[in-house]
Amino acid sequence: MSDFTHELQPAEPSGPSVLQKERDGSSINVDQLATHLLSRNDFLNRQKRILAIIKDIPYFCKRNQLNMARPDRYHLGLARAKTLKRLSIQHKWDDEDYKMADYLMDEMGPYALQFTMFATSIREQCNEEQKKHWLPKLDSWEIIGCYGQTELGHGSNVKGIECEARWDPRSKQFTIHSPTLTASKWWNGALGRTANHAIVVAQLLLPDAKTGQYKSHGPHQFMVQIRDMKTHRPLEGIVIGDIGPKYGYTAMDNGYMLFNNYKVPHSALLSRYSGVDSEHGTYIKPENAAVVYGSLTFVRAQIVMHARLVLARAVTIATRYLSIRRQFADRDSKDPNAAEVAVLNYPTVQIRILPLLATTFALHYTGEAMYKLYYGTRQEIEQSGDFTRLAEMHAASSGLKSLSTMLAADGIETCRRAMGGHGFGGGSGMIPLNNDYLSKPTVEGDNWMITQQTASYLIKRMTQVIGKPNEATREPVDAQFRNYIKSSQTAASGAIDILSTDEALVLAFQHRLSYLSHQVYKQRIEQKKPWTELMISLHNLSRAHSQQLLVSNFHDAVFKATPDPPLDSTTLSALQDCFRLFSLYTLDTCASEFLLSGAISTSTLQAVQPRIQALMKQIRPHAVRLVDAWSIPDYLLESSLGRYDGDVYNDLFRKAHLENPLNLQTFNPDWKTEEIIMGEGADVARRRLETLALGVTGHEQRGGRAKL
Amino acid sequence: MSDFTHELQPAEPSGPSVLQKERDGSSINVDQLATHLLSRNDFLNRQKRILAIIKDIPYFCKRNQLNMARPDRYHLGLARAKTLKRLSIQHKWDDEDYKMADYLMDEMGPYALQFTMFATSIREQCNEEQKKHWLPKLDSWEIIGCYGQTELGHGSNVKGIECEARWDPRSKQFTIHSPTLTASKWWNGALGRTANHAIVVAQLLLPDAKTGQYKSHGPHQFMVQIRDMKTHRPLEGIVIGDIGPKYGYTAMDNGYMLFNNYKVPHSALLSRYSGVDSEHGTYIKPENAAVVYGSLTFVRAQIVMHARLVLARAVTIATRYLSIRRQFADRDSKDPNAAEVAVLNYPTVQIRILPLLATTFALHYTGEAMYKLYYGTRQEIEQSGDFTRLAEMHAASSGLKSLSTMLAADGIETCRRAMGGHGFGGGSGMIPLNNDYLSKPTVEGDNWMITQQTASYLIKRMTQVIGKPNEATREPVDAQFRNYIKSSQTAASGAIDILSTDEALVLAFQHRLSYLSHQVYKQRIEQKKPWTELMISLHNLSRAHSQQLLVSNFHDAVFKATPDPPLDSTTLSALQDCFRLFSLYTLDTCASEFLLSGAISTSTLQAVQPRIQALMKQIRPHAVRLVDAWSIPDYLLESSLGRYDGDVYNDLFRKAHLENPLNLQTFNPDWKTEEIIMGEGADVARRRLETLALGVTGHEQRGGRAKL
Repeated sequence: MSDFTHELQPAEPSGPSVLQKERDGSSINVDQLATHLLSRNDFLNRQKRILAIIKDIPYFCKRNQLNMARPDRYHLGLARAKTLKRLSIQHKWDDEDYKMADYLMDEMGPYALQFTMFATSIREQCNEEQKKHWLPKLDSWEIIGCYGQTELGHGSNVKGIECEARWDPRSKQFTIHSPTLTASKWWNGALGRTANHAIVVAQLLLPDAKTGQYKSHGPHQFMVQIRDMKTHRPLEGIVIGDIGPKYGYTAMDNGYMLFNNYKVPHSALLSRYSGVDSEHGTYIKPENAAVVYGSLTFVRAQIVMHARLVLARAVTIATRYLSIRRQFADRDSKDPNAAEVAVLNYPTVQIRILPLLATTFALHYTGEAMYKLYYGTRQEIEQSGDFTRLAEMHAASSGLKSLSTMLAADGIETCRRAMGGHGFGGGSGMIPLNNDYLSKPTVEGDNWMITQQTASYLIKRMTQVIGKPNEATREPVDAQFRNYIKSSQTAASGAIDILSTDEALVLAFQHRLSYLSHQVYKQRIEQKKPWTELMISLHNLSRAHSQQLLVSNFHDAVFKATPDPPLDSTTLSALQDCFRLFSLYTLDTCASEFLLSGAISTSTLQAVQPRIQALMKQIRPHAVRLVDAWSIPDYLLESSLGRYDGDVYNDLFRKAHLENPLNLQTFNPDWKTEEIIMGEGADVARRRLETLALGVTGHEQRGGRAKL
Repeated sequence: MSDFTHELQPAEPSGPSVLQKERDGSSINVDQLATHLLSRNDFLNRQKRILAIIKDIPYFCKRNQLNMARPDRYHLGLARAKTLKRLSIQHKWDDEDYKMADYLMDEMGPYALQFTMFATSIREQCNEEQKKHWLPKLDSWEIIGCYGQTELGHGSNVKGIECEARWDPRSKQFTIHSPTLTASKWWNGALGRTANHAIVVAQLLLPDAKTGQYKSHGPHQFMVQIRDMKTHRPLEGIVIGDIGPKYGYTAMDNGYMLFNNYKVPHSALLSRYSGVDSEHGTYIKPENAAVVYGSLTFVRAQIVMHARLVLARAVTIATRYLSIRRQFADRDSKDPNAAEVAVLNYPTVQIRILPLLATTFALHYTGEAMYKLYYGTRQEIEQSGDFTRLAEMHAASSGLKSLSTMLAADGIETCRRAMGGHGFGGGSGMIPLNNDYLSKPTVEGDNWMITQQTASYLIKRMTQVIGKPNEATREPVDAQFRNYIKSSQTAASGAIDILSTDEALVLAFQHRLSYLSHQVYKQRIEQKKPWTELMISLHNLSRAHSQQLLVSNFHDAVFKATPDPPLDSTTLSALQDCFRLFSLYTLDTCASEFLLSGAISTSTLQAVQPRIQALMKQIRPHAVRLVDAWSIPDYLLESSLGRYDGDVYNDLFRKAHLENPLNLQTFNPDWKTEEIIMGEGADVARRRLETLALGVTGHEQRGGRAKL
């Protein structure tokens, strides 16, 4: 068969010519905006430097990933992780360099816990002696670790975990034991096949001094060696394995682990804040748990910043491809040969993509504000023992974790669907992005659960403001609550004309938050309604708080502050339009709350949709340059549709025609034979495919495991 | 290592005991409801019969699917398809039996087009002579077919496809040719590796009688042999391949195909409705294109019915698992040992699951209504040539395709997230469901595009009603439009008290639809606004129409009609609550449209959320039995979380511990060596993994393809 396809080109206008025109049609200063958005931690230079090192290493080639069997994905993941570790030594990478390589590789690999919870626990939960023992082993990677908290039966409710650590006063040891199957550790990254040590979270059981009866002092962390350092087989009394395939994180060995009366020494209990007196078997209480809150907040601030880059990736792919893709001529055109319209010019496409583009910037400025709040609060605590802002920070970060991961997870899918058929294909680059990110609404606090913490804070603030209206406080919401209560007592507050000024938009979000806080306050505090019955309102209240933060931080950044690094006027003005679009679009999605609160009138709401459409028209010519500013390299995008150069169709075709292993074989389509590959023969095919379909049977598996 | 895990049981209460209690706590008549919902085409008996035949066939075992490499998924898919074909002969299956087997296998395999578009085209587009030639070959499966319409550059806009069929008057042949790369066929199922014949859709180019210049008469269908019947290699002048991995449809070989001046005879053009006079090379025009509309409507009615079962599957899994899963004690409980609460008892979980449960029934009754409309219209056309209801049917089916696939696709993900961590795992059974179904918002008419057809119809009706207010018409919306116009001319129509009666709820949906139709009418017809600028309003208008259909069909089925087969009062009453929940929940998601239209007042809206919560409390005890009625067998669910018997945790553990191939190997976690599997050696590992990472290189691929 002769291959004539190399002579063919895509129809005009070509993708590269379209993107060139798009870029020529806007005077957004991409470099300046990129620096403005990505200078924290020297992000841009670091990205350039690390990308140059890793992008051509064979192990790091991503193109065959979607074809691989899941076990092979782990094998390759381990090989990649080892390579990264070697590169880190060769190039003297610091932690941020390592993180950058991970980000660009775009794979949560089996060493990931070595940098995160395993390391954090050793650094933060060990006493000095323990640190002295474990830190060198961590740093030399003599121990490969994981963090065993979540169980088969318990995730969100950590206090409910069933794994036990029972103190034996005679042997001065703890017995770690799984009393039930649901006590099995479950989901713990790197546990399944990789780690030789684990931080195990277990109920600390101590005997009562008088009765001798055991009583739990709640979940505590223990350092446990779980596999033999030479054979890498699980130690006697421990059963471990990988939990199997899941949506994403294909290269990660999320594991399960059960203990059968497994003994660990007194020193296994990480004892910086609490401990067990080995002499009397009594519990030593922690002094202040607030420090834990602090680092949780930091993790959640990072989630906001991560969400912005993940969403930017989806929006980059969608914006570029939908500028290039053409479909249908204008229905009102009289010209039968009218050219087809770029899909991004349709308002039904704009309304899905451009508000998300605006959302990337909204998340950015709030992420920055959260870092500032975090570092400021930490300084106050360290310098003057002032813990007052901790509650605010915790509340803000809980709600924002929930909202921002929801915006990004839903946004990815919105972008994918807007790209039609090719959005469903592997060439979109959306599959790993989607599969991995879909974990985020659940991990680090379920999105529908942690919003209770934000609502709880807001009820407290409203109670304080109503109870002690004249007491000076530092919490930012207090002032707006006070105003709201005053104005609702004096006269019917008029609706706000949100289209008149940008400040008015912020005020409307504040008013709606105060209204919802007051409603919930009345139900919970005055009418004493059950907490559970209020949960939906609590969730909505938290959303209103997070949206207000996003809107006001965005507003302050583009109207009040002097941008640092500076921005020229076209760029700043495009960001200001993005602020307006984000705010109005967000308001529109929750319009009935704004109406019910009296923040806006129905006639104002009538004008919101046309205004949104006008803003989208203004932003549209800058869309490609705005996504360019997020500086996401092609290596990370791994997307034919989102390529920087716009050569979409050649790349889609190349991937299918030259890189698809399925195309190497010729098949026998005749149903009368069991032969599958031409010439393979029916018997061989039958044996091969039955084994494939049945996989590991219970029998084989047991045999296999017995060999471990 | 000794395996002590077989002695362990999950913590109490066990899943089976919980589901038993749930079932004991409701008197819904499951069998009766199942018969009520699933008697069309003898669904329930058929399911039982086919399930018994297929469920234990080794090829049909699903448990290893998520571990497989993508090429293997196709291999197995072909083997499965062949087996199904053989079973169909052995057991004398009819088409419905075959469809049932496909549904239960839950895999779109490489023979799928043989039953759908390939067969449909032969049956509906061939003239008698062509039928005589091709039908026996189709029925004997001598030819294995696919349908080649979509191209790399064109999907939705079929008129824009680039593939050409040029008539050569001298040789009396067509030359099929791909002038560009974007003219490549793309996405066509079964084309990539399986089919030997294709229906190719190409622009029919005929020379003008006077000038001799070629002119397109639009896309037409051609029957083309594409592969050699013995070697199965592509014929000279054709390049074919599989397009590679995508979100779902792993076992399907979606293909690409390019033609290099490929000759086909005059008879290749399917000529039932149109054709080419081979003598003069002139075009023979089709008489009536309406028949095509009819079958499209039928396909879309099936999509609604399919959406209900897909959504029911997700809701079944979520309802069972979330009844069993317990997390946190009641926050207001004074008892420190209070038992943990079943997750489905939290309103924040109910609000995500129970409206979706209600949605399954809403989709059911509208699907039934669409079938009725379809068969009624067809009868009118066939018996009296009356085409009047065709427009209504087409409009309703377009909007409903869009809304119902959106409800199901979003609903699957909502269920998945509500299940927290385990929802992300392979044991959830949600991965293939999600991956396959995510194609639906795009295929058979993009969800944001086809709504224009519904809106266009509604504008026409409003124009008719306003222009000729006294003319009698058959379209159901005309009466409500007429009322709306009258009442808006006479006096300010008062808001509807939707909580007073069930009819009032339906009225509110009608009022809002009339209002939106009138708004759009004014903009398009009176103010002559550009179509493109109105697109967002058009989309929202279509949504309002589809929601009104869902609400009023649901209402009529559970309040007006005598259920057939009959339902006892508890069951009927639960369905009536589901109607209320579905309607109020739907209203709440679009509340601002109802407020702006004046259908409801703000004070009514205030009362909606508490009413929704009260309804959920009423439905909650029946949830498990209601999903049981959908009768989805465990074999189809393939879900540890959704098992009928509730043995969730044992099954999750069994899958991980006994069926995970990754657990058969021991790994070397030491970063200093490139060895991956213990004992494999570093060099072997390096070669193996580099090949894996790089996949098919261009060179190898070309070599491979040259062999085809």
